[in-house]
Amino acid sequence: MNIITISREFGSGGRELGKRLSDILGYDYYDREIISAIAEKRGLSESFVEKSLEGISTKKRPITFGRSFTYAISMGLESTKLLSEQTTLIKDIAKKGGNFVIVGRNADVILKEYNTFNIFVYADMEAKISRCIRRAEYGENLSPKEIEQNIKNIDKARKKTREIISGSEWGNIKNYDLAVNTTSWSIKELAPAIAEFAKGYFGREEK
Amino acid sequence: MNIITISREFGSGGRELGKRLSDILGYDYYDREIISAIAEKRGLSESFVEKSLEGISTKKRPITFGRSFTYAISMGLESTKLLSEQTTLIKDIAKKGGNFVIVGRNADVILKEYNTFNIFVYADMEAKISRCIRRAEYGENLSPKEIEQNIKNIDKARKKTREIISGSEWGNIKNYDLAVNTTSWSIKELAPAIAEFAKGYFGREEK
Repeated sequence: MNIITISREFGSGGRELGKRLSDILGYDYYDREIISAIAEKRGLSESFVEKSLEGISTKKRPITFGRSFTYAISMGLESTKLLSEQTTLIKDIAKKGGNFVIVGRNADVILKEYNTFNIFVYADMEAKISRCIRRAEYGENLSPKEIEQNIKNIDKARKKTREIISGSEWGNIKNYDLAVNTTSWSIKELAPAIAEFAKGYFGREEK
Repeated sequence: MNIITISREFGSGGRELGKRLSDILGYDYYDREIISAIAEKRGLSESFVEKSLEGISTKKRPITFGRSFTYAISMGLESTKLLSEQTTLIKDIAKKGGNFVIVGRNADVILKEYNTFNIFVYADMEAKISRCIRRAEYGENLSPKEIEQNIKNIDKARKKTREIISGSEWGNIKNYDLAVNTTSWSIKELAPAIAEFAKGYFGREEK
């Protein structure tokens, strides 16, 4: 049973890499499927579930002390519940057996007991902004400056969520087997190289 | 012309990886050869040249203000001269052309103008200590605690030297194309996987 987890900076191409790896290796692929399953089960919108799990508020409100305080508390509880549900779901996927790639969701921490191959995907800020601009579904109406701010906010939230659930640092290479800089690669060309690497990892005799 | 640079934590197996990569790929290999060349040219011992370049004093002296101040200055100058000589030598190697692997010596910074493939090699402290103990030429008479302290001192010196010559941070993944955790690999099995990856890197069309 081979499991590849992918943690990634927003805009670095980690999701595309995960999808391509699963295609090349013939592994199952989990990413938004997990959001969809939770949303359906709980009768919530996918967008709400996603934002709660990423630790991002769905709305910005003027700082009126009473309201924003109440709001913060209720968001916090909801996020905690959803995070716990997500953890159960990911563990269930692993229990079923079979090889898979899973993107984000701190799966490397959640599946620590399995011998997962953990990849961290990152890139220069300029490359991440370009990638966001190229992706039609994101950033169409945003300036590069605004995209950069969004990237920073999202990564900050990911870092925070990880620290809450694991006490270990997001993006600290010690937590990963391989960290790959996608700046000068097309993901299409990078994926086969990583796939070979992963095969080597799963095929090795432990030292 | 393909150049692979390897930066590594002490004890992580970076040197062995470099040697094996050069064997697999049929590239030239540079590591201690550079020390030897400088030592010969300057009529110094290899050990003195190596320690000066790593920024480690060859002797510890009691802190007598006058003496130690003079000593510090003279070491600093010698190190600076040797570093500059090393830089020239590394640039000359690249100018000759041909594919090569070079371990350490901040070659990734010195050869920035070439499209080098830059690898950072690291491992858990426990794995690094075990590796040092397994290596006969090092750590024979040292306790694991002493080895750990040595690893930390050497890496601290490498970090400092890099910052002096480049202003960029040693071990910060943004400065590398690939960072690989050798903790659960034998280098013998890891090397072919990295070699395939490097081939992919040099064979890619830039995005």
